[in-house]
Amino acid sequence: MKILPLAKLDKLLHPESVAIIGASPDKKKVGYAALRNMVLSGFKGRLYAINPKADQYGEIEGVKVYASINDIEDEVDLAVICIPARFIPSLMDDLGKKGVKYAAVITAGFKETGSEGAELEKEIVEIARKYGLRIVGPNILGVMDTSAPMNASFAERSPIKGDVAFLSQSGALLTGILDWSCAEGIGYSSFVSLGNKADLDETDFIEALADDEHTLAILAYLESISRGLDFIKVCKSVTRKKPVIIIKSGRSIAGARAASSHTGSMVGVDTTYDVAFEKAGVIRADDAQELFDMAFAFSFMPIPEGNKIVIITNAGGPGILATDAAEKSGLELATLSTEFKDKLKSFLPPAANFNNPIDALGTAQAEDYGKVLELSLLSDDVDGVILILTPQAMTEGQETADKIIEIRNKYPHKPIITVFIGGEILGPSIHQLKKNKIPCFPHPERGVRAMGALAEYDKIRKRPIDDKIPNLDRDKEQVRSIFDKVKSEGRKNLLGTEAINVAKAYGIYVPNTKLARSKEEAASLAEEIGFPVVMKITSPDIIHKTDIGGVRLNIKSKEEATKTYEEITAKAKEHYPETKLLAVDVQKMEKIGKELIVGSMKDPQFGSLVMVGLGGVYTNFFKDVAFGLAPLTKLESEKMLQRTKIYTLLKGVRGEPPSDIAAVNKTLLRVSLLVNDFPEIKELDINPFFVYEEGKGVSALDVKITLE
Amino acid sequence: MKILPLAKLDKLLHPESVAIIGASPDKKKVGYAALRNMVLSGFKGRLYAINPKADQYGEIEGVKVYASINDIEDEVDLAVICIPARFIPSLMDDLGKKGVKYAAVITAGFKETGSEGAELEKEIVEIARKYGLRIVGPNILGVMDTSAPMNASFAERSPIKGDVAFLSQSGALLTGILDWSCAEGIGYSSFVSLGNKADLDETDFIEALADDEHTLAILAYLESISRGLDFIKVCKSVTRKKPVIIIKSGRSIAGARAASSHTGSMVGVDTTYDVAFEKAGVIRADDAQELFDMAFAFSFMPIPEGNKIVIITNAGGPGILATDAAEKSGLELATLSTEFKDKLKSFLPPAANFNNPIDALGTAQAEDYGKVLELSLLSDDVDGVILILTPQAMTEGQETADKIIEIRNKYPHKPIITVFIGGEILGPSIHQLKKNKIPCFPHPERGVRAMGALAEYDKIRKRPIDDKIPNLDRDKEQVRSIFDKVKSEGRKNLLGTEAINVAKAYGIYVPNTKLARSKEEAASLAEEIGFPVVMKITSPDIIHKTDIGGVRLNIKSKEEATKTYEEITAKAKEHYPETKLLAVDVQKMEKIGKELIVGSMKDPQFGSLVMVGLGGVYTNFFKDVAFGLAPLTKLESEKMLQRTKIYTLLKGVRGEPPSDIAAVNKTLLRVSLLVNDFPEIKELDINPFFVYEEGKGVSALDVKITLE
Repeated sequence: MKILPLAKLDKLLHPESVAIIGASPDKKKVGYAALRNMVLSGFKGRLYAINPKADQYGEIEGVKVYASINDIEDEVDLAVICIPARFIPSLMDDLGKKGVKYAAVITAGFKETGSEGAELEKEIVEIARKYGLRIVGPNILGVMDTSAPMNASFAERSPIKGDVAFLSQSGALLTGILDWSCAEGIGYSSFVSLGNKADLDETDFIEALADDEHTLAILAYLESISRGLDFIKVCKSVTRKKPVIIIKSGRSIAGARAASSHTGSMVGVDTTYDVAFEKAGVIRADDAQELFDMAFAFSFMPIPEGNKIVIITNAGGPGILATDAAEKSGLELATLSTEFKDKLKSFLPPAANFNNPIDALGTAQAEDYGKVLELSLLSDDVDGVILILTPQAMTEGQETADKIIEIRNKYPHKPIITVFIGGEILGPSIHQLKKNKIPCFPHPERGVRAMGALAEYDKIRKRPIDDKIPNLDRDKEQVRSIFDKVKSEGRKNLLGTEAINVAKAYGIYVPNTKLARSKEEAASLAEEIGFPVVMKITSPDIIHKTDIGGVRLNIKSKEEATKTYEEITAKAKEHYPETKLLAVDVQKMEKIGKELIVGSMKDPQFGSLVMVGLGGVYTNFFKDVAFGLAPLTKLESEKMLQRTKIYTLLKGVRGEPPSDIAAVNKTLLRVSLLVNDFPEIKELDINPFFVYEEGKGVSALDVKITLE
Repeated sequence: MKILPLAKLDKLLHPESVAIIGASPDKKKVGYAALRNMVLSGFKGRLYAINPKADQYGEIEGVKVYASINDIEDEVDLAVICIPARFIPSLMDDLGKKGVKYAAVITAGFKETGSEGAELEKEIVEIARKYGLRIVGPNILGVMDTSAPMNASFAERSPIKGDVAFLSQSGALLTGILDWSCAEGIGYSSFVSLGNKADLDETDFIEALADDEHTLAILAYLESISRGLDFIKVCKSVTRKKPVIIIKSGRSIAGARAASSHTGSMVGVDTTYDVAFEKAGVIRADDAQELFDMAFAFSFMPIPEGNKIVIITNAGGPGILATDAAEKSGLELATLSTEFKDKLKSFLPPAANFNNPIDALGTAQAEDYGKVLELSLLSDDVDGVILILTPQAMTEGQETADKIIEIRNKYPHKPIITVFIGGEILGPSIHQLKKNKIPCFPHPERGVRAMGALAEYDKIRKRPIDDKIPNLDRDKEQVRSIFDKVKSEGRKNLLGTEAINVAKAYGIYVPNTKLARSKEEAASLAEEIGFPVVMKITSPDIIHKTDIGGVRLNIKSKEEATKTYEEITAKAKEHYPETKLLAVDVQKMEKIGKELIVGSMKDPQFGSLVMVGLGGVYTNFFKDVAFGLAPLTKLESEKMLQRTKIYTLLKGVRGEPPSDIAAVNKTLLRVSLLVNDFPEIKELDINPFFVYEEGKGVSALDVKITLE
């Protein structure tokens, strides 16, 4: 088989020459295991062992030992490093000077051990950078590739050759999965330990593996993502070519962030990852079992052209379990045509069920299964097949497995997932299926979920290309000058009118609002604006105005405005006796619309989240909000809103007219541009945000902005 | 081992004599398989083969053949029936006369084939009833019990002896699970196929198995529940002694019910089962994998005394995955005492993690695992242990397994769940653990979920006994007479004032409401009640009054009342030109409270559901409602309300006073009594239902009642 080079990392995963630095004849040492694995892997390139005691050792496992990398005359693509951490900085210089391209640093004792180790890690990266030398690790199990083939690791063995790549931030998990996979018959193309990700990270490998013809799907176990925006960009493109499935751990340890805005309080510990994965087209596995069930499906089966499946079974019960699971997994049961059913009736007994799930009954022979399977694969209404078998008296396990393999080979264009419920009697048939690259699960739901992932990926690969960020009219200069002023005064929280002016500069409608610094001014501004008005306390020290009675609605006269000014400033002084600036925003009172909330919160990894959802008193209880990552495309803003439950209400129900959904979407785009143009915005709340009838717009009644 | 008889079904699961009716020497026949299985099972009692060709066959598998059951002189406890369906009615008479106690009808061809089969099934049950003969099936795989031991089935083999009972409504699933379990090493006490459940059903078996000392836990696969109320009653009592875990399938095929009430539209296809299982103390498994993972845990491990666990690992990654899963499974990570940590520090390397999850690092030896495990089991802060092992270079898989077994035997009082991530290298250790009755899973999350089920059961067994139905003052006679009148008029929907009077008779507060049959009467009644009033159209034909503009608020004068009467009756006539009775309810307009909805809906299996939750325009979007089954206890009504999200708001937030939660609960109890006293109530809606500040009560603004 012709081996196409990877576009990137080619000499890492498919090196022509490898040096094991710290190779040792001591079988207990990592330096021995790494060398032995390279030898056993069937590596076809040049292999060098490096150890200062070269003269003493001569050869290890048949590989000549050199005292130093400098003693090697040829080029070295990859150095596998097993020497103690403290010797690595000077080694890096040697490698760099020698022109070595990649270093896989197996050695531990870096960032994971504390600040001293972190310093050392930084040092070796800096040295390597000088020479353009790229590092995997440190603190890794190693790097394996079955198409090279090569195994630069201290694992107990090499993976089976297969079609999925697996990247793992936990080396120990990798050893476990390797051992488990060998027993289960799951093979891998590349098997990479990412370690501390001091230099190369998941994004580098995902990008490289996108072009690897031996890799059909990319799996990863990640505890963090190093470069959020690059990750999204790369995955967005890669996932059009092949699926990326990730289990991201640490949901429980991320902890809540400090947030002063409503939006911030709605952001869950894992919200950003969910949103980022969705944007990137990455499938998120819920647990390890699911991840590897998906690995089976993606490495053995083609992607379906839709989500319509047929369930074929020889028993009702498991068929119902599969049907129950189908809907949860985003699958639909294909409706069978009369023609299809008539064909089934021509050979199945009359008591069989000719609807989907098709119950061929306990008497079903291999021949029957074969015919139903073939009909299903040939039907235009069917995108994939779940085939369930229970070992009943007349069941032909082995023959049915053979039949399935035969038909799969004849019609390889649609996915078949089998569920053989058994172990002892069915053991050989199950083994036979797996050996022939047909996924087989012991319980219906696992099979259905795996098929669900295939169909989910079909949707992802066919997503419309959606990269155009709308370029709406906006006044950046105005916002820049407001922010400059706020910063120059040492403040982080914008005053009400400042935030309103920022919103206006970005085309977001806010009712007429003026700042009053005295009760007289309040009265005259109220008259100028026109009654009724709303009056709101404003101070850089006060964020939650309502909580201290700082917002008053429906003020109808100059007298009332004067009195209100006195009352709410007095109240505010009680709560914030130290505050220097205290004034009142006087705002035109708008009619009541449907109450939403719009907001944004900065994320350290992925930029800024934008949020929309149900506003008002229920906001915190129902958390009916959806998130997107700025900058949003038009489609993304629409999808966000559609994901909320309140959306149904906005569309108009029970005779009510629809709301101005277009205006909401436009606001989301404007907020997205604002936080994208000004990354110094830490949090933003538009709350309440009223939406009126279709064509009548929206109104941002209150805007809060906090800078970093 | 002494075999205690089961309190019920003793001669079925532990018969002293068994007759195989239709025993055959033909190895392809069910009658052969059943006889062979009885012989191979090691059955110690008397075994008879029955076949009209007795003379010809003589003996089958060493068992003497009789021509008829009447030829047997001794008593027969159990007849296993394998003859064609049409011969069974007359056989039933023979068995009855002979005094046979149980018949396990393996034969198919009954209800499952259509109406003719259903008739035949009814017939054999009727005959059996005459004699007190009880039937399992028909259409079953058979009945197996490993403590008897006996295997009265046509399965391929007997289950391994074990501690959990498994009941299944699908015989084929049973064959699959049997085969799978044998390979996995999962054993069973009883293994029962329920078939068509013409006579004996899940409730009978659960009740009987409660007293079986060989059964530690009862598992079931069910597609339906035959006697809902008995099921709840029996399980409520059984689950104090041992866990009952059920996978109930058919979520997807149940289909939505026709419902005319708001409450009805909120009842999901599976709501009643969830509520009934909760009331019964039954643990519901989400899928087959989970069911059998739980089987492992319950049959091998004791129930913990709480939900605080320690996670012990030799690698960070899987520890994080387990931690992520713990919260979802209702588990808490135990906080380790300083003393505990100091002890850990005395033998683990300094780089280890001494917090929970405890990472003993990749260098952890069997001895280290043993010490951490022992410390954990001895700690008062720890209820159970999840022990994770990955196969790293220094890992001692086998020795660690031995160590775990040794320590479990020393401290058998707390559950230990192991997760050995591997398959080839770790294979023997995993096998060793399972053989020694220690649950072992390949992925962290599965182990955590199994532990979660153990802890969930601990809560169930310790639930306070809660059986007292409050006996509140109520006027049954009044309601009876209203219902009689409605029925006598051939109506099903109560008029507004009728429904209001029913509510009042049960002590539910409804604002003063009078029925006006003319505009003049409307005006004078409005004045009598006192302005402002609400006017609502009333007619047995109109259910959704608001939809046709039939409800008007805030009517402030006699003139307005007159005009409103004309307008809304005219509107109603437009929509319902055929309606005979058309009048208007005039109601005192109450101040606005927090808006809830209270309702009830009849369930064919389990009696009446009672519902409470968020009312108003958001009801249908957020579906923030909780259900209970009538008759409710005080605790149940409180728990229902607490399960809603709106409850947090009712408790009072952001300085708002709390709502009158006690009055809401009392209303739930009154509705529960009403629907329990009058099972003819099909649907009931109290909507809107206002709740005011604590001490200020509630108000049922509108009541709708539909009879069956």
